[in-house]
Amino acid sequence: MAVSKQVKPLFEGAAFDVYDRMCPARLVLEHVTSRWGVLALAALRERTYRFSELRRRMDGVSEKMLAQTLQTLERDGLVLRRAYPEVPPRVEYSLTEHGREAAELVTGLVSWVQLRMPEILQAHELRDGAA
Amino acid sequence: MAVSKQVKPLFEGAAFDVYDRMCPARLVLEHVTSRWGVLALAALRERTYRFSELRRRMDGVSEKMLAQTLQTLERDGLVLRRAYPEVPPRVEYSLTEHGREAAELVTGLVSWVQLRMPEILQAHELRDGAA
Repeated sequence: MAVSKQVKPLFEGAAFDVYDRMCPARLVLEHVTSRWGVLALAALRERTYRFSELRRRMDGVSEKMLAQTLQTLERDGLVLRRAYPEVPPRVEYSLTEHGREAAELVTGLVSWVQLRMPEILQAHELRDGAA
Repeated sequence: MAVSKQVKPLFEGAAFDVYDRMCPARLVLEHVTSRWGVLALAALRERTYRFSELRRRMDGVSEKMLAQTLQTLERDGLVLRRAYPEVPPRVEYSLTEHGREAAELVTGLVSWVQLRMPEILQAHELRDGAA
């Protein structure tokens, strides 16, 4: 433990370290990489969504999981929730400036996966065939 | 369902869609964004690791979870497992070419989280204080 601490750049500005299980950065990383966190960020990069629209966009998410995901991202300062005093009430979700940064990185990963799927499926076939 | 299918670019090369819960791309996205998948890819971008070294690097991972994570990434064609016929046996893990692509994107996200942690923690304080 003491040895591995020495190589961490604790005193060079990068005080946060996702490899350290006690570091809060690991938790935040899990927020933005969670199953629904990834899709919410990527979807909100397209445009502002109402809750029910976003739920339809993110095929398979439950109301509860989407609400939790959005609350977590809102608390992290990545998602903005705007409630309009209308009848029926309208609530819209969008990205903050930081949220847009995270969403760009996440979208890069989404695009990469979609692009590489043919090769990945081929790897599955090779591997499962050889097993 | 039929309506949402119409707007998906199914016939323009991008046949995979992580927003569709039935699409295999969603599963692969979850492999590379899983708690331990992210850290394994980012760590293996640093260098080749032996299993026990990698386990120490990824603070908190169990032997079972690390083995599962590496197997999944190996099956996806992202991680290469090399066993050397030595006594005691030596097994090393590294990234494939595609794995390196994924790891670069994942590392971008890791670096972003570590960089933005001060602002994110500030957002937590503001939010929790106001609640």
